[in-house]
Formats: sequence, C-alpha cells, structure tokens
Amino acid sequence: MSETMPHEVAARFRALVAERDQLDAEAAAPKLVEPRGLYQGRAAFVLTPRSVDEVAAIVRLAHETGTTVVPQGGNTGLVGGQTPDGSGRAILLSTARLDRIREVDAEGNLMVVEAGVTLQRAQEAAEAAGRLFPLSLGSEGTCTIGGNIATNAGGTAVLAYGNTRDLVLGVEAVLPDGRVWNGLRRLRKDNTGYDLKHLFIGSEGTLGIVTAAVLKLFPAPRETATAFVGLSSPQAALALFQIARLHAGPALTGCEIMPRIGVDFTLRHMAGARDPLEAVHPWYILLELSSPLAMGLGETLEAILAEAFEAGVVDDAAIAASGEQSASFWRLRLGLSEVQGHEGGSIKHDVSVPLARVAAFIEEATAAVEAHLPEARVVAFGHIGDGNIHFNVSQPVGADKAQYLAGWDAMNRVVHAVVAAHGGSVAAEHGVGRLKRGLLEDVKSDVELDLMRAVKRALDPKGVFNPGVVLAETRS
Amino acid sequence: MSETMPHEVAARFRALVAERDQLDAEAAAPKLVEPRGLYQGRAAFVLTPRSVDEVAAIVRLAHETGTTVVPQGGNTGLVGGQTPDGSGRAILLSTARLDRIREVDAEGNLMVVEAGVTLQRAQEAAEAAGRLFPLSLGSEGTCTIGGNIATNAGGTAVLAYGNTRDLVLGVEAVLPDGRVWNGLRRLRKDNTGYDLKHLFIGSEGTLGIVTAAVLKLFPAPRETATAFVGLSSPQAALALFQIARLHAGPALTGCEIMPRIGVDFTLRHMAGARDPLEAVHPWYILLELSSPLAMGLGETLEAILAEAFEAGVVDDAAIAASGEQSASFWRLRLGLSEVQGHEGGSIKHDVSVPLARVAAFIEEATAAVEAHLPEARVVAFGHIGDGNIHFNVSQPVGADKAQYLAGWDAMNRVVHAVVAAHGGSVAAEHGVGRLKRGLLEDVKSDVELDLMRAVKRALDPKGVFNPGVVLAETRS
Repeated sequence: MSETMPHEVAARFRALVAERDQLDAEAAAPKLVEPRGLYQGRAAFVLTPRSVDEVAAIVRLAHETGTTVVPQGGNTGLVGGQTPDGSGRAILLSTARLDRIREVDAEGNLMVVEAGVTLQRAQEAAEAAGRLFPLSLGSEGTCTIGGNIATNAGGTAVLAYGNTRDLVLGVEAVLPDGRVWNGLRRLRKDNTGYDLKHLFIGSEGTLGIVTAAVLKLFPAPRETATAFVGLSSPQAALALFQIARLHAGPALTGCEIMPRIGVDFTLRHMAGARDPLEAVHPWYILLELSSPLAMGLGETLEAILAEAFEAGVVDDAAIAASGEQSASFWRLRLGLSEVQGHEGGSIKHDVSVPLARVAAFIEEATAAVEAHLPEARVVAFGHIGDGNIHFNVSQPVGADKAQYLAGWDAMNRVVHAVVAAHGGSVAAEHGVGRLKRGLLEDVKSDVELDLMRAVKRALDPKGVFNPGVVLAETRS
Repeated sequence: MSETMPHEVAARFRALVAERDQLDAEAAAPKLVEPRGLYQGRAAFVLTPRSVDEVAAIVRLAHETGTTVVPQGGNTGLVGGQTPDGSGRAILLSTARLDRIREVDAEGNLMVVEAGVTLQRAQEAAEAAGRLFPLSLGSEGTCTIGGNIATNAGGTAVLAYGNTRDLVLGVEAVLPDGRVWNGLRRLRKDNTGYDLKHLFIGSEGTLGIVTAAVLKLFPAPRETATAFVGLSSPQAALALFQIARLHAGPALTGCEIMPRIGVDFTLRHMAGARDPLEAVHPWYILLELSSPLAMGLGETLEAILAEAFEAGVVDDAAIAASGEQSASFWRLRLGLSEVQGHEGGSIKHDVSVPLARVAAFIEEATAAVEAHLPEARVVAFGHIGDGNIHFNVSQPVGADKAQYLAGWDAMNRVVHAVVAAHGGSVAAEHGVGRLKRGLLEDVKSDVELDLMRAVKRALDPKGVFNPGVVLAETRS
C-alpha cells in the first residue's frame, strides 16, 4: 500500500505499530470511501494504533518526514472530512482501537473515554452507572466519541444538553509535532488561560488528533412524556415550541419537526411504521419532555397541548401511552434520513437559522426551491428548537437520479441564499469537511478566514493534519 | 496625561474620540487602581469610546505606533487584568460608554448588548421581556458584560446554566490590528470551522477587545424553593448535593456551602442578619430549586431533605416561607465576601477541584493551613456543586494585618499544593490576570504554555493587547 512513499520512510512507519494494526488493502478499503460514496481516497498506510503513545510516534514521524495524517473515527461523517485525498501519500490514522472506557465516575458525574469508543458504548457505560450521556445521533452505533468531538456533533438532545462541545470537560490530543497535550481536566470551572479544548473541538482533525476525553454525565431521566402532534405550518410548530419551552424549561428535551411528505416516505418504506394520527396534517412535531424528577410530566404535556389547542396552534395530538409507543413515534423521526434514499436522489442542506426565523426560513426556502425546480420535493425536518433544519430536496418523481444530482450546487445556491438572508449557517451540525470548504469561503468574512488561517498556521505550521479539510491547504 | 508618549502620537490619539471621552486625571484615577488596591497603574490616555468604530480607530493607531492597549469594563476584576502597568505608556480603553442594549429578542431567546452594559442592566432587560439572563455575581451592579466575557465569569448560577462562555452565542471584537470581527451569530448550532468565539471568551483582553455580544436568554422561573441547611461536614454537604441533583436535575439552580465561621462573621458585621437555625452547625448549605414550570418544587425540596435526613446527611433545615425569607438566606451567602474585610487580612484562593473531590479538598487544605499557621481562620465557601471553593484564610485574631498579608505567597503554596494533589485549578472563576501569571507557569505543562503562546503570537504578533496579563510579554 505504500508505493507512494519512499521505502525507507515506509519501513519506519511500519515499525511503529504491530502488524495487525497495519491494515491490508481489503481491511482498509471501507475506510477509504465516504459512506455515501461522495469521496474515494487513497492512503500510504491505514494504521490503527492502540495507545496515545503509538499515535504520538506516528505523528512525530509524519511531522519529521512531511507526511500528512488524516484522522478517522467511525467513518460516518457526511462532509468527507475523514477521507484522504487521492494522492495516496497520507497516513489514514484510525482511532478504532483506541477503544477503552478508562473510567466512569458516577459521583463526579463524568467519564473518561478514548476516541475510538462508539457513542452507543459511551451511552451504555453511563447508563450502567445510573447516569445519562445525552448525545444522541442516528449513527450512534458506529460513530465514535473522537469523531463527535472533531465535528462538534449535534443530534436530537441539543435542546436541553447542548452540542458535543458542551458535554466535554477536557481532552487529550496529539499535536502536529507529535507532542501530547494532556488536557484531561475534570473541572466545571477553570479559568487558567485560553480555552484550548474548544479550539480542538469542531476543528475536524485539522489541528491535532483527540485521543481521549472527559465527558459530562447527567442524572438519568426517571420520567418521560412524548407526543406526536399534527399542525398546519412551520409557524404553528414554532409557536408550539415556544409554549412548550416556557412551560417545561429544561424538561423539554426533544422538539423535532417533520413534514407530511416525510411521514409518507416512512409509511411507504419502513416496515411496521404507522401514522399515529387519524387525519393527514401538513406538518408534525415530535415533542418529548423528560426529567430526573418524578413530577407529573404527563400533566405538563397535557397542559402544553391544551394551551396550544386553545391558541389554535395544534390540530391534533397523540400522547404515547407506553415506552413502546414513544419509541414508535421516534422511529418515524429517526427513520427519515434512511427512507429518503428510496425516493431517488436527495440534495442535502444541513442549515441553521436564528430560532425566531426558522418558520420563515422553511417557507421561503421551499418557495425558492419550487420556483427553481417545480417538481422537486422538499423534505425539511429536524431540530426546530435549535433552529437546525435538514432541508433536503428529493428529486421529482420519475426524474433521472444522476441528472438531478448534477444540479447539487445550483440547488445549494438557491437554498443557501435564503439561509444567508436570515443570518444562518450552511454547516449547522455536520461540519465543513471537504464538501463545504468552498462554501465557507463564500460565507465567511475575510477577517474570520484570516483568523482561522492564523490559528491553523500557529498550531500546524507544516500542515500535517487533514490538509484540505475546512481550509484550503496551507504550509508556511 | 500623555507625557510618556511623543506629542505627535498623542495628538493623533486625541483626534480619535470626542474630548469628553478623554478622561482627565481626576476622572481617570479610579480606573487606574485595582479595587482592592493590589495594583496601581498609569496610562498615557484613558479613553471611553462610544462605538465599535471608535474602538477600532484607537486600536489601529495603537497597532501602527507600537502602543499597548489595556481594555477595562467595570474594574471589578480581582486579579489585576484590567490595570495597566506603571510605565504610563498604555492606552486604558474603557468600555463604559459602549453601553447600548442593541436588541432583546424574546421569541428568539437572545439579546444583543454592548460590552459596557452592566450585568445588572442586562439581567433587567431580560426580565422586562419575560426572560432570564442567569449570570449572577456579587459585583453585578458594576461589572460589565464585556468583563464577564473577557474573564469567563462564573457566579452562583453556573450549576444549572453554565459559565459565561455557555451563555454567549456570538461576539463582536476588535482585533489587534484594528480590524473588526463581526461574530455576532444568533445560532444554536454552527459548525463552520474553528470556534473563534471561545478563544476570545476568557482570554482576559489579551487577544482583542470584545465590543458586543449575543447572549442566550432562558424562560423566567415561575417557582422557587429555598432551604438553609445545617450539616456536620463538607462530606455531608457533598452527599446532600448529590441527592438534590438526582432528584431535581436541572431544577437545582443553587447549591452554596458556608462554614460556621462565615455565618459568625456575617452575624457580627452585617446589619439585620440572623441565623435561620436554632442550633449551631459546623457547615451550611444554601439550596435553591427553581423552574419555569409550576411543578410543586416545595414538595420536591421536602422530599430531598427527607431523604437526606434519613441518610443522616442533614442535621437541621429551614425552608423559606416567602420570597423575603429566601432573600435573607441569600444575603447570608452573598455578604460573605464583604464581611471578611472586617476581620483583618484575608488571603484568597479561588480554586476548583473535580466534584467528587471537593469535600476531601476542603478537609485536607484546612488541615494543611492549620499546620502552617495554627491560629489562622479558614473561611471556605462557595459553589460546591461546581467544585469551586473560595478558600480564604483570615488572619489570626489580634495579628498584624500587614505582617499576615506578607505571608500571602507562602499560604498560597500550602493551599495550591492540595489543589494540585486533587487535579484542581488555581484560577477557577476569577481568571489569571497579573496576579496569577507566575502560578500559571508552575501549574501548566510546557506543551500547554507553548500552545497558548502560539495562539497569542498568531493573533497579536505585535503584543498590542494587555501585555503581561495571562502570559509574560511576547513580541515576535
């Protein structure tokens, strides 16, 4: 695999990890392709080190020899940040075998896990200790804590618990020169200089590689109440969110919007799916309250819905009578990403706008798309309480998929113009990667791009880590 | 005032702001001394610009002429970060007149305020819109949002709402070359590259000057329940915190620890103070639950206390029967900082340790201080739920104050050794400033100091902003 690297250099890399941790072509192949096939990379080596010392040794040698390093977690990223370019000169450094849960400290409400631990294992370890690690994503069985941190992953629990960055107390990272920064703090308050942790979180592996982290834990919920609500418009959905938030405050732990077409897709393509409501509604909200406190959330949910009915905001609602029914509501929401694939090509926009603008954004962007391509089918869903909408556009029925997808950039321009008009973000929770690097140059001010480049040059002057991701390649 | 600056340069600065915004010696004097008198500085000019453009013009000229700039908010900082050195060559840039509340958006749960707005005005503006801005500090009537951001201020609401950094959606800052970075985002999710906002927050004015910010708002509490609890030890206090947190989750919005000696000081020196409990207890917890949801918090508080009594954790408790009584409990806690001044010299330690270590820390540090200076009086109080203790040590009764305070550094070493043994921080919420810059060099790894210096050099290569604060002076 190392034909792109001088023999002597390759031999030195080979000496750094055990043979079983140097993947052969067959084992490496799935790690070299982005999950949707958008990017296909090559690498001199795909290495799976088992300790921070091994990672540091690899990076030190990379720094010395001018080799680039692409870190990869569960390879579930949707913007190509984990995929090397086609030159075959990079080391793909997989964190898959940095997979120890070093400690769970229930009393301290924290745990220390290595980068390659999957999100689901981290959740399970917290649960076994009577605690909650709230981060929750569709890909949680495969994605890793390291990848979550590198991309500052969002998901369905951000409303109450924040993004990944809000759940991290400290990190351990290998820097571009191979030195290890032990920033594994366990403190809730620490004002000793610049908060370097936040620089690594969300930097998509371009400033260093996070090898372990201290994560916050929360009390496990004792009570949950879930409703599936039919409404007439995104404006009504936003009004329902506001009522729910004022009543429930931090007990409002989920508020997801879905359009009717999304429910239709799911009923069509997901076995066992059924519509919780009798009539058809243009829009739906999945509302979840939960609390570690047994405080009659069922009554709170009823009070929220009663106020919303009275205000004419809600048309119909089903309240889950059991955990099983609640899970069936969530399957309607979580299955959405997958079922779109059965309806042909889908052009994606992971965007956010200020909360108060989210209804106007959905309406205006839908109108703009329909003007651009009349038969296109907008599937706008997601985390309305965070202002984060997955504004996806499925191809017209019967259209040619490849031809439709060839219009990806043009469609992006239509939608992103509406995002910009509302002061929004074109990379809300999936990151920039390779896919949106060009977009970044369009939407960021020169001042901000200069600041980002200055940070990159300061921490990684030789351009060791993930060149071409987030920012265009820089070597100083 | 500008005898330290060439006449021609001084004239150019004078031309940048109106005459009323160039303070004369008398108006400038209180801004040149640290509130406890620990530092006395001099300045070429004390300027109070009224707009971000004026700030930018001043900084641009400073950058061009090699003049240093010291930003200052309400001058309430406790580590000297807002005080220029004695050279008289710096510009003291006060944000006092950047005092507009640009916008309160209740529906969007945010507000946009300028740096010089006092924390109390910001709280009041939120309240007038039916929302809560939760940051709360003893100095809130005087300290400013800009200073809160520069120091990542903590306070009594961190438990439920986080530090200042968690309350900021976006910032506007003037960079060391005088360019303005408009980072006034209003988004809950935005993964478009490095999170530069977090670099400026907590950087104590060394990387730029924050001129405005977008702050998060929360639903206003509808219900509050407060108890004043007597217990036998910090260990018991920690156990009570754990019980309260598991029951109340995010509704636990205050958990403050106080020792008996602190209550004694307050009863002695604060007019109208009275002990809420009949018997004397070695330790006290002020416990507060609050929620935007009317959910019977009184019952929850009783359930928490009942469980704690049963577990032998709590010895006695008074539950506030009115808002007035609750306020009287809080006065016992908030008066603590001031009343210590009536008992002679006080050597301060603003420290934090991991939550599970907080009781052991208080006990071990107290023993260490008593071994070091047997008659010294430890007054350890603060935010136990954050692991943040103000571990202050009052002088022995009848001792000479100046002689006692001359032992400041030696006492610090005794206490900070215990902090280090528990993996804690010697600058939990007040920052580093000038006071703790030397300490920082002791407690940080070379790797971390190198990273901090690299960031400083990258953003402020000419060393315009706040030289000698946080890091030793660097000019590249």
